[in-house]
This record gives sequence, C-alpha cells and structure tokens, in this order.
Amino acid sequence: MGTEISTIGEFGLIKRLTENIELKNKTTHYGVGDDCAVLQYDDDKEVLVTTDLLMEGVHFDLTYMPLKHLGYKSAMVNMSDIYAMGGTPRQMTVSIAIGKRFSIEDIEEFYEVLRLACDAHEVDIVGGDTTSSRTGLAISITCIGEVETGKAIYRNGAHDTDLICVSGDLGAAYMGLQLLEREKRVYYEQLKESNKHLDFQPDFAGREYLLERQMKPEARRDIVKGLRERDIHPTSMMDISDGLSSELLHICTQSGCGCRIYEERIPLDYQTAVMAEELNMNVTTCALNGGEDYELLFTVPISEHEKIEEMEGVKIIGHITKPELGCALITRDGNEFELKAQGWNPLSEK
Amino acid sequence: MGTEISTIGEFGLIKRLTENIELKNKTTHYGVGDDCAVLQYDDDKEVLVTTDLLMEGVHFDLTYMPLKHLGYKSAMVNMSDIYAMGGTPRQMTVSIAIGKRFSIEDIEEFYEVLRLACDAHEVDIVGGDTTSSRTGLAISITCIGEVETGKAIYRNGAHDTDLICVSGDLGAAYMGLQLLEREKRVYYEQLKESNKHLDFQPDFAGREYLLERQMKPEARRDIVKGLRERDIHPTSMMDISDGLSSELLHICTQSGCGCRIYEERIPLDYQTAVMAEELNMNVTTCALNGGEDYELLFTVPISEHEKIEEMEGVKIIGHITKPELGCALITRDGNEFELKAQGWNPLSEK
Repeated sequence: MGTEISTIGEFGLIKRLTENIELKNKTTHYGVGDDCAVLQYDDDKEVLVTTDLLMEGVHFDLTYMPLKHLGYKSAMVNMSDIYAMGGTPRQMTVSIAIGKRFSIEDIEEFYEVLRLACDAHEVDIVGGDTTSSRTGLAISITCIGEVETGKAIYRNGAHDTDLICVSGDLGAAYMGLQLLEREKRVYYEQLKESNKHLDFQPDFAGREYLLERQMKPEARRDIVKGLRERDIHPTSMMDISDGLSSELLHICTQSGCGCRIYEERIPLDYQTAVMAEELNMNVTTCALNGGEDYELLFTVPISEHEKIEEMEGVKIIGHITKPELGCALITRDGNEFELKAQGWNPLSEK
Repeated sequence: MGTEISTIGEFGLIKRLTENIELKNKTTHYGVGDDCAVLQYDDDKEVLVTTDLLMEGVHFDLTYMPLKHLGYKSAMVNMSDIYAMGGTPRQMTVSIAIGKRFSIEDIEEFYEVLRLACDAHEVDIVGGDTTSSRTGLAISITCIGEVETGKAIYRNGAHDTDLICVSGDLGAAYMGLQLLEREKRVYYEQLKESNKHLDFQPDFAGREYLLERQMKPEARRDIVKGLRERDIHPTSMMDISDGLSSELLHICTQSGCGCRIYEERIPLDYQTAVMAEELNMNVTTCALNGGEDYELLFTVPISEHEKIEEMEGVKIIGHITKPELGCALITRDGNEFELKAQGWNPLSEK
C-alpha cells in the first residue's frame, strides 16, 4: 500500500519530490522554494512564475463561496505571490475543469469577476485550458510577472536585528470562514427540522469585513509600491496564505535565523476580536494560524525603522534574532512561547 | 438553471470567455488562441507559455494508465506545445491534487518519470502546487519556453499553395486507447464471471507500438531541430492533440484559407491498420479524428518542396488552397469529403 501522505504533510512531500532537482538552464535563476520561480530571459528584468491548483471541497465550498467570488479570489491569490517577491504581475493563464452541474452562465460569471481582478492589476489573461470534470470543480492559475534584475525579494535574506513587519490586519479571513461555516450548519439544521427548502437568511450583520476578507481578498500592490517609493528594500518577504506562524518559520528557516514577535503588536481588526470572543477562540491564535489573509510579511534592516513607521497600513511586530534563540511569541504578560506551524495544510489532515 | 455547456462545446466556451479580452501589457505579444502565449520580456527572445489541466476519469483512466506513464505523458504533452511554436521548452511547473488512496511512493513514481521526460528535453522543474483532492487526481502543468524574437510559428500564417506536412504517423495513439479499453472490458467480464480477483494477463502481443503511442508519446523536438538545420521556415504549425482534421481546420480558419489533403498520403503504421481492421473501424477516420498523436502538423511554402522531401519522418499530405475551396479530403477513389472537426472534445460529450 505504501506510506500515507499525511505522515509527512504537504511540505514534507514537496521536499521529497524536489530536493535533488538540478537546474540545467541558464535562464532558470531560482526554482522551487519561494513564492515564485525566478527566470532570467533578459538582462534587465527577471520573470516571476507562480501557480496554484484549487480543488472543490478542499480549497473552497460552493455552498457559501459563489463562483464569482471564487474567480476573484483565485486571481488575487496568485497575483499576491508575485507581489510577495517585490514584482509586478503581468500575465495569467486560467484553467478550469467543470462538472456537468455548471452552466455556461456560471462559468461566464466566474471569468467575468476574475477578469475584474486582472483588470484592476493590469494583468493580461493569455491562455489556459477549459475542460470537464467527472466530479468537483478544479481551478488552476499560473501568474507571470516581472521584477528588475537583482531586485526580487526572497525568503532567505533576513538578518539578525532586522525588523519584522506585516501589512493590514490578521485573522479576519479565518474568522470569516468560521462565520460562513456556522451559518451553513444553522441552515442545514433548520432544513432538517422543516424538511423542505428554506428561504434562509444568514445573519452577517456587522460582520461584513470578515466576509470580505475571506471571500474577496486584495493582493497588496499598494504596499509593494509604497516600499518602492520610499526606497525601502526588504531583506525578505512572503505573503501570508497559511498563517503568520507558518510563514515566519519559513523565513527564519530559509534565512538561518530566529525571531521574536510581540502579541500586543499583531494587528487585529475589531470585528475579528469580537467574533473570536463569540466563538470562544483565542484571537491571537487565529491571527497566528488562521491563514488566507494575503497580507505581506517582510523584514527590513533596523536602519529603516523611521521610514517604516511612516508607512500607513504597516506594523512592526518584532525582530529577527540569531538562530540559537529560536522563534518565539512574547505574550502580553511577558511569557515566551515557541512558534509552531499550525497553519492550514491540506495534506496533513487526517 | 442556465445553458448547458455541451451545447457549445470546449471551443465555443473558450470563445465566449475570451473573445473580448484586451491585452494591456507591452510584454504580452500574443494571448489566447495558439499552442502557446507569446511574451516579450527581452528584445532577442520571446517567452512561450502553455498550460494543461488533466482530470482523472476525463483525460486518463488509472485502471490502465499507471501513474508513472501519466507523469511522462503530462510532461510531453506540454513540451509538445512549445515545439509546436518552433520553440525550446526550458521550465515547467507541476501541480498535483491527490486523493487519499495514493501513497507517497505513488506520487514519487509519478514525479520520477515526469523528471525523466524533463531531463530528456533539458527542462527545469521550477515550482508547482501539491495539494489534496476529495475525489480524483488532478494534474496541472505549465511549460515555459523560448524562441528567437519573430521566429515563433503561429497557426495563422498558412498561404494558398503552401504544402501541408505531418511528422511520424497518425491514429496509433487512438488505436492504443481502443486496445486498452477492450482489455479492460475483457478483464471486468472475467472478473464478473469468476467473482474474485484475477491474475489477468492482457493480450498486447504485437501491439506494443500502439500502447507506446498512447502511454508514452514523444514530443517532436527532432523535427523542430531538423527544420531549423535545413533552414526551413514553416508558415504555420501546431501539434496534433485533438486529431488531424480538427487541427487542420484550426490552421485554415486562423489563416483564412482552405485545404486539400489526400487519403493515400496520410502516414499510418502497419499495427494501426491491422488493429483498425480487427475492430472494424475505418483507419483513415482514426487517423483524421483519433488525436493524442502529438505529431507536428505544419505548412511550408511550395519552394521548400525538395528540402522537405529529404527530411526523414515528414510527409507531405496535401496543400493549402484559397478559402472559397473549403477544406476537404480526397479519398483513394478520387472523391472529395469535407473535413469536419470530430476530434475528442471533453466538453461536447453528452
């Protein structure tokens, strides 16, 4: 039967599959291991490539994620990876495998909103594959971007004393998902009781921000632009898709360093805090492990402290340390907890 | 409920989704509509991008297509699209969504043979996505290549009097599929009768070529190299994935011309002919509509006649005409039949 994949998880599997890849082409500047691959087809510019495969029932649930939102989110998630390298997204290929239950109009809606997202970021749709699926919907998107040669920001450049920064606020997308799942449960319970179709009105009043963060994330082009305008050069950067903890550990592992972040500095929205309280969850845990925020996590030399402080929508949450100090969160009461990657990992689920 | 996708098929749907796309970036040289998108990140070279999404139960059947062959074929099919533009494949991203029934060893096998295919063509695996699937296996591959600026061979450059050429032979991959499906049926029938697991030995003796063409296609780098060495510049080119008829109609539609091809000139292997006879199928129909041969179909100016005749593994099967003459096959007995796209189309299946 062989070994179950859940024993090593997604990152373990990727490591096994890719660890002895030898790059053969001089146009391949950097392969597996960062937000994007970096290709060198030109002296002045590097080409960035990132790709995602999204499966129904794993990455999205069409019960509460309408196809059009899915189109928007799929596009944004991929553009976010290009920004996370300090680049500009330029082209996209969009592949979709469709089951029989979808109509032409459904797919047009998906595409229309995906195109809205691309238009907002001036990205051209240049190709793809449209095919059928015997079961659920599958979406595969590849985004291509560019960055000035030598200016790509990898995960492996963080140094001792660098400041750790995040954009926006964290945990809201995860809270949005909890909210959607709760309403879905309520709906099914009512349905079971009444034994017929209901005109169910989910209760989302005052929670619009959480829903928007889950269903309609925005790739942070503005932050990359802001950094460029202020001549700030992050030493490392990635986008937060699996959760702050998991991403910060990637940066520390790849940079060979440790870190300290401060609970009180983690940016939270008011609605996130209220919802966590209501669900009896620890809001810091949600912010650390929730994922899908698509905010940028980056490090800058301590000399950039003032410039960063002036940037709206960016918060310094801690600093990079020597590797022997490990990676830890300092809580409000001054305790130290080791950071663990408990981010969302589809291949570790039992 | 909306309109069923099968009413317009794959090409109809793609047309609806992409017909009013406006390209915004100067790096986007050519978008949807050919084997690859063509990007211009450099003055001397153009970047080619192609992508495929393969779904279990639609594009492959793991009952008779072992994972490792699937790895090889998935890679080849994408590299073939780069060669079909006259380019050289350089990088590949590989995404795979895996159900619970697969082990680490299964996926390693898939990857290992995919890497063999990449190594043979000196292509670097630079990224991808590894995730889980609630149902069947899904594979998405994006291949990136390069071509000298201005040298990409599109589908839209064929002219009246050009010669129509194909490499290799046609219909064998389709016959291989018929053979596999027949053996699968025999297996299930025997299984039903015996009511237990059988040590079933499929009967493939003397049909090895057909199986190889179906399970282990080879992208025709040699042909592209041969054309380059002989300084032959095709006016149009594509690879035969959906069948000769369908592909030739694409070239004629996009080039605004007609064509005549000759039944007696369509290259066939002996095993293909024998198998067609055995299954009571018309071998020409199989060659025209079978698909999955991954041979190259191209047109050259009539002045290149002698050079092409000298090329091993290339056959002239007809010529391009004025558009008003339509697209037709001239049979062995001199009759003319209009060519129709009856190629394999997953979205037209009822």
